[in-house]
Amino acid sequence: MRGYSMHKDDYRKRLAKIEGQVRGVQRMIDEDTYCVDILTQIASVSKALQGVGLGLLDEHLRHCVMQAAAADHADGESKISEAVQAVERLLRA
Amino acid sequence: MRGYSMHKDDYRKRLAKIEGQVRGVQRMIDEDTYCVDILTQIASVSKALQGVGLGLLDEHLRHCVMQAAAADHADGESKISEAVQAVERLLRA
Amino acid sequence: MRGYSMHKDDYRKRLAKIEGQVRGVQRMIDEDTYCVDILTQIASVSKALQGVGLGLLDEHLRHCVMQAAAADHADGESKISEAVQAVERLLRA
Amino acid sequence: MRGYSMHKDDYRKRLAKIEGQVRGVQRMIDEDTYCVDILTQIASVSKALQGVGLGLLDEHLRHCVMQAAAADHADGESKISEAVQAVERLLRA
Repeated sequence: MRGYSMHKDDYRKRLAKIEGQVRGVQRMIDEDTYCVDILTQIASVSKALQGVGLGLLDEHLRHCVMQAAAADHADGESKISEAVQAVERLLRA
Repeated sequence: MRGYSMHKDDYRKRLAKIEGQVRGVQRMIDEDTYCVDILTQIASVSKALQGVGLGLLDEHLRHCVMQAAAADHADGESKISEAVQAVERLLRA
Repeated sequence: MRGYSMHKDDYRKRLAKIEGQVRGVQRMIDEDTYCVDILTQIASVSKALQGVGLGLLDEHLRHCVMQAAAADHADGESKISEAVQAVERLLRA
Repeated sequence: MRGYSMHKDDYRKRLAKIEGQVRGVQRMIDEDTYCVDILTQIASVSKALQGVGLGLLDEHLRHCVMQAAAADHADGESKISEAVQAVERLLRA
């Protein structure tokens, strides 16, 4: 069980939509779509992807980190460091 | 013809790889992969996607914007505004 | 007491440095510095600022959120939602 | 003369405001303000800073890059590469 296990269906749907959007970008390139319109679509895919990341982060903090902290203080601490590093990677991406 | 037309194959390959990475994220969720590892993968997909965006922006400036500016000053100006707005959308995504 | 209270001196130093960097950008503009060099400096200030944000987030999760969660489950939950919304604002900034 | 020379006053005002906002963050830390409220302020400073960056980018493309391209094709090309790298640094910051 993971923090996100109860919402797997929701994530599957969102990622399937993102996959379709990426294929849409490929199609735009095949069809010589105007560059700026492709950039707009890329920003939209990027936002959707970050949204999935934020959802997973929320459930990770809510479940995995909380359970770790309740069971063992040091483990909770190290899981928080790890989560903040994950946020940093999202910010830098 | 678009700015990116000469590198369509390169973009197709990069986008096919990104599509595979998005499917990889779906698989990670199906297989109950540890949340933080999924976040790392999401940051990596996001970076790859921004890379495609930066490539398209480069070629857009180099070709579409330059040609517009050479043909008609006002058109060049409006294409630059449009490109900067596209950068803003990428930054906010 | 806040999560960051034990490291106030560190944050004061980092923010004083950032303030100096912002003044540096003003000076660059006064002195007609080349645009791209100013943009490089802005990216560097932005990174330093995000670094302060990540540090505060880390200590917020480690102290405020953990204490709230230990005292009252519902309060912990709402503090996590609030922290994730703060991350979202950083990502969109 | 730089691309932004005609709007120096505007940039000075915006940067003075940003400097004040950074000092505001320092004050919030001195006064033990709630962590999430500081993060909100940091996101707002960051957005204002990116706004200055986008403004400078716009004027850089509109003036420096255009003039370089009109005078010498190769110089225009290298200025575009340089501008896109600056955008990349902003995105990664």
